[in-house]
Amino acid sequence: MPEKIHKLNGTSLIHGDVKFAGSEVAPSISVSTSTVKSLLARLKDLDLRNPDRHVYSRYTQQVSTRAEHILSRINDGFAVTYSSGLSASYAALVFFRPKRIAIRGGYHGCHATIDVYRKSQGIHLEVVDLDSEYRAGDLCWLETPLNPTGESRYVHKAGGMLLVDSTFGPPPLQYPFRFGADCILHSGTKYFGGHSDLLAGVLVVKTLEEWNKLHYDRTFLGSMMGSLESWLLLRSLRTLHLRVPRQSASATILAQWLNSVAKTPVGKTYDGIPGGVVEKVWHSSLQGVDERGFDPSKQMQGGWNATFAILLSKPEYALEFPHILNYFVPATSLGGVESLVEHRIQSDPSSDPRLIRLSIGVEEVEDLKADLQQAFEKLASVC
Amino acid sequence: MPEKIHKLNGTSLIHGDVKFAGSEVAPSISVSTSTVKSLLARLKDLDLRNPDRHVYSRYTQQVSTRAEHILSRINDGFAVTYSSGLSASYAALVFFRPKRIAIRGGYHGCHATIDVYRKSQGIHLEVVDLDSEYRAGDLCWLETPLNPTGESRYVHKAGGMLLVDSTFGPPPLQYPFRFGADCILHSGTKYFGGHSDLLAGVLVVKTLEEWNKLHYDRTFLGSMMGSLESWLLLRSLRTLHLRVPRQSASATILAQWLNSVAKTPVGKTYDGIPGGVVEKVWHSSLQGVDERGFDPSKQMQGGWNATFAILLSKPEYALEFPHILNYFVPATSLGGVESLVEHRIQSDPSSDPRLIRLSIGVEEVEDLKADLQQAFEKLASVC
Amino acid sequence: MPEKIHKLNGTSLIHGDVKFAGSEVAPSISVSTSTVKSLLARLKDLDLRNPDRHVYSRYTQQVSTRAEHILSRINDGFAVTYSSGLSASYAALVFFRPKRIAIRGGYHGCHATIDVYRKSQGIHLEVVDLDSEYRAGDLCWLETPLNPTGESRYVHKAGGMLLVDSTFGPPPLQYPFRFGADCILHSGTKYFGGHSDLLAGVLVVKTLEEWNKLHYDRTFLGSMMGSLESWLLLRSLRTLHLRVPRQSASATILAQWLNSVAKTPVGKTYDGIPGGVVEKVWHSSLQGVDERGFDPSKQMQGGWNATFAILLSKPEYALEFPHILNYFVPATSLGGVESLVEHRIQSDPSSDPRLIRLSIGVEEVEDLKADLQQAFEKLASVC
Amino acid sequence: MPEKIHKLNGTSLIHGDVKFAGSEVAPSISVSTSTVKSLLARLKDLDLRNPDRHVYSRYTQQVSTRAEHILSRINDGFAVTYSSGLSASYAALVFFRPKRIAIRGGYHGCHATIDVYRKSQGIHLEVVDLDSEYRAGDLCWLETPLNPTGESRYVHKAGGMLLVDSTFGPPPLQYPFRFGADCILHSGTKYFGGHSDLLAGVLVVKTLEEWNKLHYDRTFLGSMMGSLESWLLLRSLRTLHLRVPRQSASATILAQWLNSVAKTPVGKTYDGIPGGVVEKVWHSSLQGVDERGFDPSKQMQGGWNATFAILLSKPEYALEFPHILNYFVPATSLGGVESLVEHRIQSDPSSDPRLIRLSIGVEEVEDLKADLQQAFEKLASVC
Repeated sequence: MPEKIHKLNGTSLIHGDVKFAGSEVAPSISVSTSTVKSLLARLKDLDLRNPDRHVYSRYTQQVSTRAEHILSRINDGFAVTYSSGLSASYAALVFFRPKRIAIRGGYHGCHATIDVYRKSQGIHLEVVDLDSEYRAGDLCWLETPLNPTGESRYVHKAGGMLLVDSTFGPPPLQYPFRFGADCILHSGTKYFGGHSDLLAGVLVVKTLEEWNKLHYDRTFLGSMMGSLESWLLLRSLRTLHLRVPRQSASATILAQWLNSVAKTPVGKTYDGIPGGVVEKVWHSSLQGVDERGFDPSKQMQGGWNATFAILLSKPEYALEFPHILNYFVPATSLGGVESLVEHRIQSDPSSDPRLIRLSIGVEEVEDLKADLQQAFEKLASVC
Repeated sequence: MPEKIHKLNGTSLIHGDVKFAGSEVAPSISVSTSTVKSLLARLKDLDLRNPDRHVYSRYTQQVSTRAEHILSRINDGFAVTYSSGLSASYAALVFFRPKRIAIRGGYHGCHATIDVYRKSQGIHLEVVDLDSEYRAGDLCWLETPLNPTGESRYVHKAGGMLLVDSTFGPPPLQYPFRFGADCILHSGTKYFGGHSDLLAGVLVVKTLEEWNKLHYDRTFLGSMMGSLESWLLLRSLRTLHLRVPRQSASATILAQWLNSVAKTPVGKTYDGIPGGVVEKVWHSSLQGVDERGFDPSKQMQGGWNATFAILLSKPEYALEFPHILNYFVPATSLGGVESLVEHRIQSDPSSDPRLIRLSIGVEEVEDLKADLQQAFEKLASVC
Repeated sequence: MPEKIHKLNGTSLIHGDVKFAGSEVAPSISVSTSTVKSLLARLKDLDLRNPDRHVYSRYTQQVSTRAEHILSRINDGFAVTYSSGLSASYAALVFFRPKRIAIRGGYHGCHATIDVYRKSQGIHLEVVDLDSEYRAGDLCWLETPLNPTGESRYVHKAGGMLLVDSTFGPPPLQYPFRFGADCILHSGTKYFGGHSDLLAGVLVVKTLEEWNKLHYDRTFLGSMMGSLESWLLLRSLRTLHLRVPRQSASATILAQWLNSVAKTPVGKTYDGIPGGVVEKVWHSSLQGVDERGFDPSKQMQGGWNATFAILLSKPEYALEFPHILNYFVPATSLGGVESLVEHRIQSDPSSDPRLIRLSIGVEEVEDLKADLQQAFEKLASVC
Repeated sequence: MPEKIHKLNGTSLIHGDVKFAGSEVAPSISVSTSTVKSLLARLKDLDLRNPDRHVYSRYTQQVSTRAEHILSRINDGFAVTYSSGLSASYAALVFFRPKRIAIRGGYHGCHATIDVYRKSQGIHLEVVDLDSEYRAGDLCWLETPLNPTGESRYVHKAGGMLLVDSTFGPPPLQYPFRFGADCILHSGTKYFGGHSDLLAGVLVVKTLEEWNKLHYDRTFLGSMMGSLESWLLLRSLRTLHLRVPRQSASATILAQWLNSVAKTPVGKTYDGIPGGVVEKVWHSSLQGVDERGFDPSKQMQGGWNATFAILLSKPEYALEFPHILNYFVPATSLGGVESLVEHRIQSDPSSDPRLIRLSIGVEEVEDLKADLQQAFEKLASVC
């Protein structure tokens, strides 16, 4: 476990939006699309980042502005919110207008968004692997945890830019600007929202100039968050520092334990689970230093990932597994208070049919462990 | 007033979503991003237009599916919803991938969206006037009320396509597919939403194939409506047939009356209002047959526009006017139950400083008229 | 059909809350339980009916205050809102502290509320019929449409009070203060809410003193509306003048037509429906002047009821009927935009098993009629 | 600090409502007042505590049923929810129908509710002090932390009942049934809601019979929670085990520190704060064993209170203090994620003008301490 040197500040989460707070202790859910204009108010005079009034909710509205200020603070940059992680991804493409994109595997939805962008472009936009030799105009698109420092060095040297999709590593787990990122992407749907009840996307950039450019684009891409989403996102941020470290700690305990299960040879048992059911565990805590010298503990200074994957030994195991658990909901997504389990092939047809993804929630870790244990025992006895 | 041969069917508005209704009389507000998966459910097996289950709310969710079915029905096509009118506009550009766009004036936001699209394209996308000679690959972008039948003939002959932004002419006022449109665009924020409390956009196409294409793009553009927006839009549609004809009828009475005011010479009065205060009124009911033979009453078979513009004689009049009215809220936007008044230059700097836009709500028309009357009298006496 | 001399003013519905409107065109959904206090603010200095600030949402909150002002205006009195029609009923009992209650039949829920009140009283509270000789301290509890003028005269003469439950006769259908009521009760769940998606109750009294007393009691009964309910109620009131007259007009057409069906002898048909299926129709338009001289058209000056009951000839008919209709939802409640049908015995076991209640929505009346017609034909052919 | 032997189980908070969960990972916001009836459904056949369908939202609705099940589980009893803490209090009075109430000080709102109840009773209901000799029919009404074990013994021996208002001591801080309570009352607005954005009340009883009685009464008192309140309450419960222990731990640190400040004599300073500014601190951790042998650490086994009061030395100090803090919002209420400070006399005129109440949120305790410190220093230097 890496030293927790980068604590997520709870005071910022609660009071980071104070200058927009008005007289209500909890904000109202802003829904008005339009506001009353005073005599000489001009849209062009509006400070869109620190609005003292709102004109039209496609530009700004009370609650999303507040959420953006807190997101800016906890990500050490300037945050813009979007209707979804993919509309944030699309906005990043419009913003960077890359000549090539260097990306590897990762979230399949994001590849489809790149395709839609390419199609609308009408011109050829090359997608290359991360190992490629970078060129000017490249956008390197990294999903956490992958070596940002290394890629940052290479791509910047070549005149390209680095975007880090940090969805799996929200604050306080990691802070990508410290490792060379030019832009941080989050599916706010996941840990920021944290209750599986809102879609949102976030881009964080380093300067106000970049923020203004992103905000202008978003206004005319028309992809701002919904009003309830904005409000629930803000409400969720109030407990981010309580949820994420808890989820990270539980996930680390479970991943370590599952790794012991995976290392148990056939014929032996570990905590009652026969060896040979679990084949492999991927978790940042198990990753170690790679051949290029990347040490994930340098990157994930605030805790290891709370979502991880395991490989079972048989497709039949993976098919049944999600449906015999009591405290893991068989569903796609991640980051919520409730633990989720997914047979990955159900949403990503290119996955290994034995692959299972676990998103760890805020339940008692002992209960989660016992639940996994009974399920593995059942699998082993039935199949 | 055109004959009301195209009535908006209230039964469709109330029961057009019945097959998705479940056991609740009023739908719940769906917020879950993800749903529990059964053993063999595969995303690719899902009928995204008629989903019997939902997988992830970026694809489909209960309430937006219902709203789309009603919008499909009342627009005689296949409707997709978006986070805003401009994200619908952007999706139309991605869908048509036009070589050129023929457009004139109209809504300034839409021009900015075209600019963002051009920028992301990286290549030259020509924007031309409606009078241009059409070519193959052109997208003719018409804002109602403008001659759709004529443009349709020209652009289709040349191998182009016709999109009609029908925001100012929702059902039952007009049905653009009857006049040659290939795609109908609505800012659902306006009459469909109707209460100034939600942002939404709508595209309607003619075939399921086109719907599937639009839906695929939207999924990866990530620009679906918010959850409260979806629900409020559906709730609003239940009264669309009560609101729009009322607003249209009141607007027509007011426009006709204002036209009489405008025609009153200086030195005379009309209903107590001195001539020379109001200079001109633009309203479809006053438009008449143009030189190319376009007769707006052929197009707007279900009633005249409920939003229209007037030109006052002095910029000072236009500056003060919105702030001395009692029953018109000085704000941008249109289509809501409350009447709005806007000094257009406040949101569109290119406007004539004497231009006023009025969006007529569902108040008593006598009250609105009396309010305009007192305001004009006040302007005339003070200025 | 009575002359419509009492129009419901749409301008009041849209702008009657203007003094609380702030800068938003549509109000935000107020959820804050508490607000920031200034230095010397004292709760006792607050004008609870016209609050310029809010202290704690059990007292007042932005949106419910606005809804109460519009409800006050359209009911010509001083309105307090409650969490449900029955909590409003209970508050009326606490307010009047009657020695006896004179009531007949009507809504069974209200009788249960009186029972709970009696139980908590610990003392005997007599419930008598409306025909009883009134005494001082009596509360006469009338459900519309029943003769308010007559009862008012009798009960006031004896020193009692008259409460009219006007749920079935919202503005503009009738205005009970004009017929002697001391207090008007509404289940706001029904026509005021109008979309089957909120519970609310309303009491209207004639003086500010009475309002203050009711408001004090409500604060400590703790039975204010929920925050979404308040907001939806306010949103619904914006279209009350469009919904209720439409529902009333459709219901009157249907009731008159059903009455013709009911009068058709066995062996004959009416519009294809065999005589003998429908036995009786109760609707205010059919009621006529009673033996005590009560003429419902004097009371219901703004239109007849939009909810009414019919008696079929066989219990089996009544059992099946709700489930073979396409445009009537088989559910309890009334007043919503969607038509409802209920086999009354399902929620009120004391009902005649042949009794059906119809609540007419805002669909096309021709569609509703055709739907009833096909259902009656089906019943007649199958049973 | 008492040993944490009674942990609040996070797994119950996340999955305690699983049997009502359906296919959504996060529940929809249920708003429908009424549901479609099947052919033979009868209201009387409905299991109101474990409904497999809903009839009318005044009885049950999806989300409040789920919240009640979790509240039942974490309180080791049978929970009913109400529109507010005071409507729950009122329901308790209707339930117990006490002959006398023994109560002392505590929450002033509750005394007003007892007054309204007495008024509606029309008969004399005596209110006596806790020191009184108990009689049969007495209801002893205790606010935490006060000696429940002692009172329980006395009142039960006399034939009375014990209600504990545990609002200031939510799970896991204390479990009143373990100390003899017959009924537990919570203002769900406070720690259960936890975000200052909902009003709710909770009663917990020990048997299903009592639950049925309470539920019947609530149905006809009409005081169920609003729909958004229900949903937000359920959402809040998912993080109760993260919020309350954090708030309790921070409050204990601050109370202990403030006590050191209070004990600092005039002329000396403590952490830079001059003695004589703070006069007294009331916190359960400082209470010690009283003369009757009551040891609060026996009662509060899961942590000390997160809300407490301090007495400043001058009224002017108390007047200014709330307005010079940065991380405490000057507002009434308690239990939210944000720290609150209140000059008590503002909402309770009978309070000592030097009394301040602090509700500790989930901010960083070091920030809260530094904030209090700077404010005390400022007070001391200015006044």
